[in-house]
Amino acid sequence: MHDDTSNTGKVSGERVYSGRIISVDLDTVRFPDGSTGKLEMIRHPGASAVVPVLRADEDDPEVVLIRQYRYAAEQFLYEIPAGRLDPGETPEQCAARELQEETGYRAARIERLFTMYTTPGFTDEKIHLFLATDLTAGDAAREADEFMELVPTRLSAALTMIEQGAIQDAKTALALFYAATFRLR
Amino acid sequence: MHDDTSNTGKVSGERVYSGRIISVDLDTVRFPDGSTGKLEMIRHPGASAVVPVLRADEDDPEVVLIRQYRYAAEQFLYEIPAGRLDPGETPEQCAARELQEETGYRAARIERLFTMYTTPGFTDEKIHLFLATDLTAGDAAREADEFMELVPTRLSAALTMIEQGAIQDAKTALALFYAATFRLR
Repeated sequence: MHDDTSNTGKVSGERVYSGRIISVDLDTVRFPDGSTGKLEMIRHPGASAVVPVLRADEDDPEVVLIRQYRYAAEQFLYEIPAGRLDPGETPEQCAARELQEETGYRAARIERLFTMYTTPGFTDEKIHLFLATDLTAGDAAREADEFMELVPTRLSAALTMIEQGAIQDAKTALALFYAATFRLR
Repeated sequence: MHDDTSNTGKVSGERVYSGRIISVDLDTVRFPDGSTGKLEMIRHPGASAVVPVLRADEDDPEVVLIRQYRYAAEQFLYEIPAGRLDPGETPEQCAARELQEETGYRAARIERLFTMYTTPGFTDEKIHLFLATDLTAGDAAREADEFMELVPTRLSAALTMIEQGAIQDAKTALALFYAATFRLR
């Protein structure tokens, strides 16, 4: 088994694009067999996403989905609250902040579920997934380019939305599956 | 509800980077409220990924995971076979081709599970997820920069790997959850 990664990794690189959210590096990389090659890598600061749970004590609790316009998909997508890590911010802090900004809810309890690589073929982006319970409603504070509405949904209904393809966002489907399989049942 | 997307979308754009796998556009976008803003968008041709299932008739079938070096993660990740769509290729054809190239298996039956947006905040990449059964072993034909080994794993053990964070790749965890929840149980 090729477990040894001590001699793998970046040999050299150049930044071919620096943007507002992402940057693109064209890196020369040493692979496990000692060979080298060029790889395009989108550099991203990472993000957190959070499943807000209402009535967590019930058999079929409610999760707060967000219906959000996504230019990438040219449609509205159902998602959970999420956003990029600010400099110096922990994933937990980011999850609590995005929950409050996007839904107005504050959570007395935020627990970590899972950390996922969104698409490791071309980006180092990781999204940290959390579960938020003991929620208190408040005012949201959305950014100018965030067009969204809250859609409280029974967990069983959210899983049916995944089954039928009405939920298409990877972090959202994965967080709901994880919560339903390992935390809420 | 802002359902109307007829007046949303691209107003103008420029390609700020053209790469081997991805390109980056800096687009001016009209949002649902009529306002406009600039968005960075990674353009990707899309991909397919497939859960190869052995002993599908058993209570706890085996899935063929791949342990693959990923520069983005600076480690080996457990994944399912996957790859980019070639020009003119359907998602089903891509899934069958990547399955054969990466594992050597040919599948008599490939069924669609789910289509996911990997990270719709900055890329239009979609990954089409499939389930492959009735497998026949053969020779793999990997690309030069693919460093991987096959790891046949009981489905129950794969779910435990997700629970414990040993599987970190989003498409892999999502495809396994979907198959376990809606197809294999």
